[in-house]
Amino acid sequence: MTYCVGLCLKDGLVFLSDTRTNAGVDQIGTFRKMTLFQKDGDRFFTLMSAGNLAITQAVKEILLQGQLLNGKNLWTVSNAHDAAVVIGDAIKQVYERDHEALEKAGIDFNCNLIFGGQVKGERPRLFNIYSAGNFIEATPETCYFQIGESKYGKPILDRVLSFTTPLNLATKCALISMDSTLNSNISVGLPLDLLVYEKNSLKADKLVTMDDSNPYYKMIHQLWGEKLRAAFNSISEPSWSGAHKSSAISAPAKKMGPIPIHHQPPKAKATKSTKKVATKRPTKRANTKRSPSTTKVVNKKKA
Amino acid sequence: MTYCVGLCLKDGLVFLSDTRTNAGVDQIGTFRKMTLFQKDGDRFFTLMSAGNLAITQAVKEILLQGQLLNGKNLWTVSNAHDAAVVIGDAIKQVYERDHEALEKAGIDFNCNLIFGGQVKGERPRLFNIYSAGNFIEATPETCYFQIGESKYGKPILDRVLSFTTPLNLATKCALISMDSTLNSNISVGLPLDLLVYEKNSLKADKLVTMDDSNPYYKMIHQLWGEKLRAAFNSISEPSWSGAHKSSAISAPAKKMGPIPIHHQPPKAKATKSTKKVATKRPTKRANTKRSPSTTKVVNKKKA
Repeated sequence: MTYCVGLCLKDGLVFLSDTRTNAGVDQIGTFRKMTLFQKDGDRFFTLMSAGNLAITQAVKEILLQGQLLNGKNLWTVSNAHDAAVVIGDAIKQVYERDHEALEKAGIDFNCNLIFGGQVKGERPRLFNIYSAGNFIEATPETCYFQIGESKYGKPILDRVLSFTTPLNLATKCALISMDSTLNSNISVGLPLDLLVYEKNSLKADKLVTMDDSNPYYKMIHQLWGEKLRAAFNSISEPSWSGAHKSSAISAPAKKMGPIPIHHQPPKAKATKSTKKVATKRPTKRANTKRSPSTTKVVNKKKA
Repeated sequence: MTYCVGLCLKDGLVFLSDTRTNAGVDQIGTFRKMTLFQKDGDRFFTLMSAGNLAITQAVKEILLQGQLLNGKNLWTVSNAHDAAVVIGDAIKQVYERDHEALEKAGIDFNCNLIFGGQVKGERPRLFNIYSAGNFIEATPETCYFQIGESKYGKPILDRVLSFTTPLNLATKCALISMDSTLNSNISVGLPLDLLVYEKNSLKADKLVTMDDSNPYYKMIHQLWGEKLRAAFNSISEPSWSGAHKSSAISAPAKKMGPIPIHHQPPKAKATKSTKKVATKRPTKRANTKRSPSTTKVVNKKKA
């Protein structure tokens, strides 16, 4: 799949992406998801992509060529918001060019980008740009975006991160988020591209591509698992006897009764259960769509 | 959504399910996902369900009525595998009855079950039964199944659980797995139904419905977050200067070069980039489907 995470903080921005692409278990590849744009002393942008690689590469090419879209490109816009609009226009141009052929081939127009950076005179900004070319912007309340395989890496971001988190701590957080994802989804893989952008620097200062020999990555990868297991072991096990009050598990729920235990119906009523399952809220719509199964059935989209 | 997890271990089985149903943000409900079947001294089964509630309730009704499917029901089969076949037959019966009308209503036939238990004379067994009525069985190598919102709760199971994990420790693990899921997906909610089945007991021994006043649940909920943050804080931050060897982050990847930094193309070549993005593996299919975006675009299935 892909996993990219972008953070927009008081002191600057952090961008982290993997490099594994997946077009089937026999077509695993290595492609960078991160692209950097710099005009010395004036502006600095980072773009990270997930989705259909042909589409995201086409969008990048338009931007790298400096094509004017509605009269603007990344080098001429006066603020990062307008830069995001330019990228949206590039997506729309690729859509116009390719969507019919993609539809005939049964392929979704799928393009999900994280874009951020700073134009001189403005604050650092971060955007999540969608397949339709529209976008949302990060705010202090929601100071990060993820694209690709986002679920495994989200909990640590929610627990630890805030707008005022220092950049170095936030970098550690992003790497742990990535490590959890690498452990749980084999279509996300090393090496990683990491950029830590310091507010007002207008350049790529702390930039590294990390593989499995990177000392810091190795340390996180090993230590995080050890510390999780240690944290797990340090929590008491449940006490069914009620001997230990704080770990007593047998206290029943206040509003819901115990689970019924069903026994074999008597032979005289072989086709009818003697215990009825309690039904509630009969006015609920019966045929209501629930979320799809997550396990190994057919027709699963590549994750 | 739903989250249910079943464990099949050397000493017995653990079953844990939530009770929140979701038919839209204005139709949140409370329905049990767990059903228990017991014939004293002879057999004990647990069924947990995810998917379309009307479908899963219909399947349960057939089983509770003791209907004979291909001449068998849960009370007459001689082993747990044949019991899983009976449940598969019940699913197929509901499918035959309802799938046409569901298709016309644009609703998927979505039914995902965890089923386990023990028939006297056999070992405890655990199955994951699919919408098609077929199923897989847990083995010592893969000793757990999850249905519903499985991603958030999976990492702790992978890190901690094995076939020889004692039941009480495994129970703690399942509850932490559930807690992580509750934190990250609001369509999974309390109260929880928990059953710990001891091998050869042939009955529901340790059974509890846990709400937010349950001492053990409260303790786990508070402590786990604290311990994760403590574990996070105890890991060193990255060292960009290389001063600390073990946390040195600047070591570049061996096989992959540094990320290129793109600058504004010269005016004479305004539409063409002077720096080409390195492309690799030109024989790769260009129009390759990638995984769908995971963020807030349109037409997202309810999770």
